[in-house]
Amino acid sequence: MSFDLQGYLQERRRWVDETLDQVLPPASSYPFPIHEAMRYSVFAGGKRLRAILVLAAAEAVGCRDSRVLPLASAIELIHTYSLVHDDLPAMDNSDYRRGQPSCHKEFGEAVAILAGDALLTLAFSLIAQEPLVDLVKGKRLTGIVQEVSQACGTKGLIGGQTVDILSQGKKVDHDLLRYIHVHKTGALIRACVRLGGMVGGASSRQLQALTDYGERIGLAFQIMDDILDVEGEEERVGKELRKDEAKGKASYPGLLGLERSKREAKRLVEEAMATLSSLPAERTEALAAIASYIIQRRN
Amino acid sequence: MSFDLQGYLQERRRWVDETLDQVLPPASSYPFPIHEAMRYSVFAGGKRLRAILVLAAAEAVGCRDSRVLPLASAIELIHTYSLVHDDLPAMDNSDYRRGQPSCHKEFGEAVAILAGDALLTLAFSLIAQEPLVDLVKGKRLTGIVQEVSQACGTKGLIGGQTVDILSQGKKVDHDLLRYIHVHKTGALIRACVRLGGMVGGASSRQLQALTDYGERIGLAFQIMDDILDVEGEEERVGKELRKDEAKGKASYPGLLGLERSKREAKRLVEEAMATLSSLPAERTEALAAIASYIIQRRN
Repeated sequence: MSFDLQGYLQERRRWVDETLDQVLPPASSYPFPIHEAMRYSVFAGGKRLRAILVLAAAEAVGCRDSRVLPLASAIELIHTYSLVHDDLPAMDNSDYRRGQPSCHKEFGEAVAILAGDALLTLAFSLIAQEPLVDLVKGKRLTGIVQEVSQACGTKGLIGGQTVDILSQGKKVDHDLLRYIHVHKTGALIRACVRLGGMVGGASSRQLQALTDYGERIGLAFQIMDDILDVEGEEERVGKELRKDEAKGKASYPGLLGLERSKREAKRLVEEAMATLSSLPAERTEALAAIASYIIQRRN
Repeated sequence: MSFDLQGYLQERRRWVDETLDQVLPPASSYPFPIHEAMRYSVFAGGKRLRAILVLAAAEAVGCRDSRVLPLASAIELIHTYSLVHDDLPAMDNSDYRRGQPSCHKEFGEAVAILAGDALLTLAFSLIAQEPLVDLVKGKRLTGIVQEVSQACGTKGLIGGQTVDILSQGKKVDHDLLRYIHVHKTGALIRACVRLGGMVGGASSRQLQALTDYGERIGLAFQIMDDILDVEGEEERVGKELRKDEAKGKASYPGLLGLERSKREAKRLVEEAMATLSSLPAERTEALAAIASYIIQRRN
């Protein structure tokens, strides 16, 4: 009996999209262009993998509760904000994202900067909501906000992006590339599974297993992104490819070659699956399937 | 017996600066330029008026507690983030801020965008800290995070900045200018006094009085900023002046003339003082003195 990952992802993606639609101000509400820009970028067709990881990690520790949805959706707002700012001319200067003009190409740079700021701000508002407080009871809300802000801050996502930007055109060795990937992409993915565990009431042993799992799939995910940048079909991936090489940006395939990069991603995913053994097998089917999916995806 | 406002402001400014120094990562910690940029902008010499308003409002409802300092300091991080992003070339394109090159002139645009993002992220981390939770007990933390994120979001600061940017070079009437000022500057100042009241355990009547006070001084503060842009001495104000006119930006003096603008600011401050009458007089000396100071300041 095999696990229906596509059905699982589809259902949760719908829940997350519905939540996002509820929490984002209508495009028609004043001041228009900012709300339009926020929705444009959020609904440009993301996989919602990060939100789904929050839900799947909560399920892995026995918590399936709709009150987790705003938290999971907040992570998607944060992910979108980071993409909107990363695409800016002063940063990665990407004209396309998910097959559409990037936010600043569509709305101008000023509105794109502000839309990113607004998505980050709205995310924290979503996290600190009463239903979640009721679910996690009292003080653990501070742990959740800390988890998110650490993962997004200068020791996480922003730190990775800083080093990435400042390393362009310079020689980057394996350690530095790993730092960039672990922080720029890995930190938020690691936080997703930890957050799911935290709201689900994970024991410290369970939380450690989820952390180990998250760290490995986070790095594997970014290595696959590098591989898709070389091997992917532009139409399917939905953004400009071969940009790493063109911009003199370090990547796993550039440093290790394609085959070794694939082996490294595969090894990380196998390790991730192994860490799940300390959780009940019937509850970790989704996390295991997501780990496999990460290195099989084509976009 | 007159209230020693300068002594009051100086003491609290020192507390806030000490807190900011503790919470900001050292400039020497990796990745360097982002932490350096954050500290550069935070310690460029702000008055810390917003943080002091949080403290003064808490004192006005009988709460003088060092656990309020991280929250008050978080507001300064948010204020600084908004200045760093506002100064960017795609936004207000200001080369100077507080008498120094603005963040992007010193560190480049990419680092300035990221430093702003990081300051906002760190602010939410500071707000959701255990000592504050102990002080406000349980659920009120969600109210505090909501207050901050509303004030900073598209119905607050970001909304005001959006309309401001999109109105440049266009005809702006009094209502629209008021919208910009109330949102871009007023919303965060209003939030400061409300936050002070909330952590201090204000009754709903007290909170209403503080809200009315905050709304009035917030608008008066921005009208004075407009007046200083026309009348101020560049050296003292520490940023490029006469920019409103040069950029075709609407301002109170531009719309109403200098004298009517001054009268409007004075009227708002008098109304603000009147709202304080529902709080114990011996506790509102600081708030009253700050209100007067707002229309007397020269920078």
